[in-house]
Amino acid sequence: MRILVINPNTTQSMTAKIGEAAASVASEATQIVAVNPADGPPSIEGYFDEVFAIPGIIAEMGKAPAADAYVIACFDDTGLDAARCATEAPVIGIGEAAFHMASLVAGKFSVVTTLARSVPAIEHNLAKYGLASRCAKVRSSDVAVLELERPGSNARHRISQEIARAINEDHAEAIVLGCAGMADLAHSLSEEHGVPVLDGVVCAVTLAESLFKVGLKTSKIGGYAAPRGKRFAGMFAPLSPTQAEIV
Amino acid sequence: MRILVINPNTTQSMTAKIGEAAASVASEATQIVAVNPADGPPSIEGYFDEVFAIPGIIAEMGKAPAADAYVIACFDDTGLDAARCATEAPVIGIGEAAFHMASLVAGKFSVVTTLARSVPAIEHNLAKYGLASRCAKVRSSDVAVLELERPGSNARHRISQEIARAINEDHAEAIVLGCAGMADLAHSLSEEHGVPVLDGVVCAVTLAESLFKVGLKTSKIGGYAAPRGKRFAGMFAPLSPTQAEIV
Amino acid sequence: MRILVINPNTTQSMTAKIGEAAASVASEATQIVAVNPADGPPSIEGYFDEVFAIPGIIAEMGKAPAADAYVIACFDDTGLDAARCATEAPVIGIGEAAFHMASLVAGKFSVVTTLARSVPAIEHNLAKYGLASRCAKVRSSDVAVLELERPGSNARHRISQEIARAINEDHAEAIVLGCAGMADLAHSLSEEHGVPVLDGVVCAVTLAESLFKVGLKTSKIGGYAAPRGKRFAGMFAPLSPTQAEIV
Amino acid sequence: MRILVINPNTTQSMTAKIGEAAASVASEATQIVAVNPADGPPSIEGYFDEVFAIPGIIAEMGKAPAADAYVIACFDDTGLDAARCATEAPVIGIGEAAFHMASLVAGKFSVVTTLARSVPAIEHNLAKYGLASRCAKVRSSDVAVLELERPGSNARHRISQEIARAINEDHAEAIVLGCAGMADLAHSLSEEHGVPVLDGVVCAVTLAESLFKVGLKTSKIGGYAAPRGKRFAGMFAPLSPTQAEIV
Amino acid sequence: MRILVINPNTTQSMTAKIGEAAASVASEATQIVAVNPADGPPSIEGYFDEVFAIPGIIAEMGKAPAADAYVIACFDDTGLDAARCATEAPVIGIGEAAFHMASLVAGKFSVVTTLARSVPAIEHNLAKYGLASRCAKVRSSDVAVLELERPGSNARHRISQEIARAINEDHAEAIVLGCAGMADLAHSLSEEHGVPVLDGVVCAVTLAESLFKVGLKTSKIGGYAAPRGKRFAGMFAPLSPTQAEIV
Amino acid sequence: MRILVINPNTTQSMTAKIGEAAASVASEATQIVAVNPADGPPSIEGYFDEVFAIPGIIAEMGKAPAADAYVIACFDDTGLDAARCATEAPVIGIGEAAFHMASLVAGKFSVVTTLARSVPAIEHNLAKYGLASRCAKVRSSDVAVLELERPGSNARHRISQEIARAINEDHAEAIVLGCAGMADLAHSLSEEHGVPVLDGVVCAVTLAESLFKVGLKTSKIGGYAAPRGKRFAGMFAPLSPTQAEIV
Repeated sequence: MRILVINPNTTQSMTAKIGEAAASVASEATQIVAVNPADGPPSIEGYFDEVFAIPGIIAEMGKAPAADAYVIACFDDTGLDAARCATEAPVIGIGEAAFHMASLVAGKFSVVTTLARSVPAIEHNLAKYGLASRCAKVRSSDVAVLELERPGSNARHRISQEIARAINEDHAEAIVLGCAGMADLAHSLSEEHGVPVLDGVVCAVTLAESLFKVGLKTSKIGGYAAPRGKRFAGMFAPLSPTQAEIV
Repeated sequence: MRILVINPNTTQSMTAKIGEAAASVASEATQIVAVNPADGPPSIEGYFDEVFAIPGIIAEMGKAPAADAYVIACFDDTGLDAARCATEAPVIGIGEAAFHMASLVAGKFSVVTTLARSVPAIEHNLAKYGLASRCAKVRSSDVAVLELERPGSNARHRISQEIARAINEDHAEAIVLGCAGMADLAHSLSEEHGVPVLDGVVCAVTLAESLFKVGLKTSKIGGYAAPRGKRFAGMFAPLSPTQAEIV
Repeated sequence: MRILVINPNTTQSMTAKIGEAAASVASEATQIVAVNPADGPPSIEGYFDEVFAIPGIIAEMGKAPAADAYVIACFDDTGLDAARCATEAPVIGIGEAAFHMASLVAGKFSVVTTLARSVPAIEHNLAKYGLASRCAKVRSSDVAVLELERPGSNARHRISQEIARAINEDHAEAIVLGCAGMADLAHSLSEEHGVPVLDGVVCAVTLAESLFKVGLKTSKIGGYAAPRGKRFAGMFAPLSPTQAEIV
Repeated sequence: MRILVINPNTTQSMTAKIGEAAASVASEATQIVAVNPADGPPSIEGYFDEVFAIPGIIAEMGKAPAADAYVIACFDDTGLDAARCATEAPVIGIGEAAFHMASLVAGKFSVVTTLARSVPAIEHNLAKYGLASRCAKVRSSDVAVLELERPGSNARHRISQEIARAINEDHAEAIVLGCAGMADLAHSLSEEHGVPVLDGVVCAVTLAESLFKVGLKTSKIGGYAAPRGKRFAGMFAPLSPTQAEIV
Repeated sequence: MRILVINPNTTQSMTAKIGEAAASVASEATQIVAVNPADGPPSIEGYFDEVFAIPGIIAEMGKAPAADAYVIACFDDTGLDAARCATEAPVIGIGEAAFHMASLVAGKFSVVTTLARSVPAIEHNLAKYGLASRCAKVRSSDVAVLELERPGSNARHRISQEIARAINEDHAEAIVLGCAGMADLAHSLSEEHGVPVLDGVVCAVTLAESLFKVGLKTSKIGGYAAPRGKRFAGMFAPLSPTQAEIV
Repeated sequence: MRILVINPNTTQSMTAKIGEAAASVASEATQIVAVNPADGPPSIEGYFDEVFAIPGIIAEMGKAPAADAYVIACFDDTGLDAARCATEAPVIGIGEAAFHMASLVAGKFSVVTTLARSVPAIEHNLAKYGLASRCAKVRSSDVAVLELERPGSNARHRISQEIARAINEDHAEAIVLGCAGMADLAHSLSEEHGVPVLDGVVCAVTLAESLFKVGLKTSKIGGYAAPRGKRFAGMFAPLSPTQAEIV
């Protein structure tokens, strides 16, 4: 199968890191293609940045050849609902992927994310997914997304400290790392703290494989129905001729 | 004060109708400016259409002169969170406006919206706002948005039937109309059914005036903090030089 | 329009302060009448005091001329449900008013009220209104209601300290002041802490104006139906001959 | 022990029926005293009537000799919170009593009450007590309270029909009768429908005995703290000199 | 009446203590029989131990003569649902008993239990019973169950310290002791801390008496229906010939 | 990897069917071993039957060689918590597996299970997992478990009818089949109804593979900590010498 892993920001070093993480767990028969839009924000930190990343996600999904499953590799699950409308193939957000997987190995987990401004969007997602009661706390480490790409920053140290607080104060039994850019840290942080530490990228890839193997596709009878054919004005490329039309 | 009422879709007849509704309740001292983006979908029906409407909303907000408050006149409250990041002035969605106002005149309300595909987004908003427990049911009338603009359609009849069901089956004490294009129907439907029937546009305008009079602005210390200065790649116009920068 | 602002306790200095706050935001065309019952408790601190304040609220509402809207100026929203039964005109509690308005400018707010004994009633209201998930914490400042009227008390200082804790510990993005007697402190506390600080009196007055302009009245088909005609025994004055009758 | 069972309305035939029900389950050593206030509404049907019943409840509680426990025999649990402030002895509402007891013999129960206008207050109580998730539905039988006292009314028939609906449509495993005036119907309706049918009066009496035997009294460190000593103006009798003072 | 109080673990000193507590509140006419299975774990600390205690509970219930009510004296309410299927007589768990009784004397309570590993099961029960919103926090005292039986351990001291934290940090108005082995500590801890401190054993016994007096039995039309007749293979004794059959 | 799929009942034809379903989605490198205990109930229909199935599950887990992951193939997720205590390897229940997977392809799902008595246990699980808000309704088809094994029964027809109701009345976007014995029906029912229809067995197998590939194991610092070493009395085989000891 072919999984398109979309990093919704334009930072290619992050795309590369995400692609590596994705490939590390994929089955031999799975082809991982990691991309990022050419246009949009270099990192997604809060609601504003999200807006300008989503058209690029849809555009990447519209490029041939079609994938068997899509992974949106931003922890906010940016544009997930819209992406599900745009295809029948499964679409997985790395945030939801990590939340669901954490729920299978721990009674309660805490999330450690980047900046405080990202906390509300993550809390909203947890409530929407139904998993808020499984999350002890969403914590920010006060690490900006691109600090994670900067060699020599003390980002890992600050994240590790926040994990310790989550275990001691929240009684979290597992930790979910709240940014795609932390994908390379999960293993060593798990060893350090003696609890499962989850990166959403690898979770999403294996869930995409799972859905594919089971033959499950996105339901098309409710909120994820295909877009109605209509003539969009202006600058946005149509996803496909049958779905939306540009004047 | 000056309120910018943004119809996020490109259908100008709907913008005109919304502007009229807005003006009908505004104080004399309030200047209502109703606009719509030039680019984007002609109607917003589900998650996919939302994506392509939000950049246009942000662009309208960025045009001088700045308004004292903004109203987003799509019942899904399309782009509301992002718009709140983009200004310190109050931003009100017509969906949330109607939910809050209905909560002041009834114990429980039901929503009557357009198509079934729009129901999940409205349910998610209710959960996010905390008002899900006040809403008996979100109902679709199976009326497409643009049917509301078409003279001779039986849209009003079908909406009225759904209202009757909401009163009888859900025990709803008030009805919230779930589309900006229904703004002109609220008064007569309320008379017909003997319960408050709320249109979000007029609710949002008076709430915007309320916040302005009280001197309340959007909090900037959490999820609605101003965007961090960063260089966006490509096609999206910056909101303002201080907030986001284009390469 | 004419808004009757009812301070449910008998302390006239507080009524004056509330009336001033109300007038400060009312439109020119709005007549604010601030009253308090002659009988009842001098302050409302907990469930017991509430009981003896409500008959006085109903009595004030029954006096001619009828108002176009009513504001109940006690943060517990004392007697709000009963008052809604007693008239078709909108009735707003200052607690609910502040909660709804705070929800429009912040993701999460905390409440800073007077004594610890008032916390449970406020928490119950938040749950009943559906807005508990928007409130990070209800905090008491250990300030008695009438201390707020006493020049030279350090009430403001203690309230300010509790606000600081709410911002740092609860990650509250806005603060709701939990007593009508704090109406004069909101503006300076907002400046001091850099977040929206809401007083319910001004919020309720503008919401009452909003409902009036939109033409919304309390729904009469459910819990707020007019009282059934019945002969009350004894000491309580009837609201009006058509609603309840005294032997 | 001595249990004061207070019927908050002024209808003595109902007080007699309630007293009989209470005595039917009380232990031999328990003295049941059933009273009603001289002043107030003849029945409690909705929020408005409640207001005028509560001062009478408090007055009855203040009369010597003090009881070991108090039962408030209105299904809305009228004035329960205030009554708990007024004494250290346990105070039980018949609504909460029935909800808690039903939770011990069934996974889910439905409530069958009198008029539709009483439904919201019951729903609010269920949410406040935390037991909303145990209640499948609050149903009204469209029977006015005093119809229950009128020989020859078909009240029992209508209640029985609503019970059948609750079992078939709500999958309720037990039924809670939502009015003190239905106390005499529980046994025969249980036999008729083959499920537990609970009357709150007998539940409350046995719970009051339970709390007394275990030695449990109302906590005085939070919302149920004793009223602060203050000078009430006007018409309301003080509960006791130490608690509240009249000018 | 005859109440069978089943200590699900095999530690007879604990059975004796539980029996004493039960007898201390039972009415004269009530016969308390305290038993424990011969087979199973000596203490129940977490999900694993529960499994091996439940068959013994069912076996004790199956022994003649049948009781009028059953109390399961483990705070996890081990096997409660299954036990309810096995008889029409009321079955009460001491955990649920304490939660319901605490809800009648306090707005909010905290639980102080033994080991951290027992916290999640208690939290799940609270959510299942609907009473999670009444519980401020489930706290562990880090006391193993059998330390409670060991003279000279400082178990009481550690529990008392945790109660102090619950009052100060959680604003708990009452404390529920989270282990049957703490039954003898409730009274003195209540005196020490000035709040209701509840032991589930005495609560359950008086609730069992209450249900019996009111004539309430477990509903048999839903989840607690009697087991279907089927042939169990192997080692488990049938409850009774009519209910389950062994090959 | 080696996955032990445990059918907790003793019906070997069902074990065979489950094993086939499991093998149909497993990767080539995965060894599926499907077993059932020799002792216990022939089907699990409600809380009572569950009790007598769990010791057998634990016993099967204790047999050498150890598996890399365990699947409990009863839709009630019988004994899941205890099984997680008994090993560090991932343990997945087929109920939770289906709920999580359905949440990735649909906004809301309904469950169609066997008998009405099984509904409450499933509802409790949904609440415990946090996913109750994603489930529109748990429906029973009134099909006994072993009818599914009987050629010529009209079980499939009744299940299909219930699915149609779930789609029309609940607005479910996907269907979860609520019994391991329905594993062979999922594919054809999905084709028939045009929505995703999920069988938990295949979901659980692929999730077990996912967890294994990602390297996630059950957290051992909270409710799933390894059993404390203690001497169990009597008939239950120890899981392993290091975990529990038999007298």
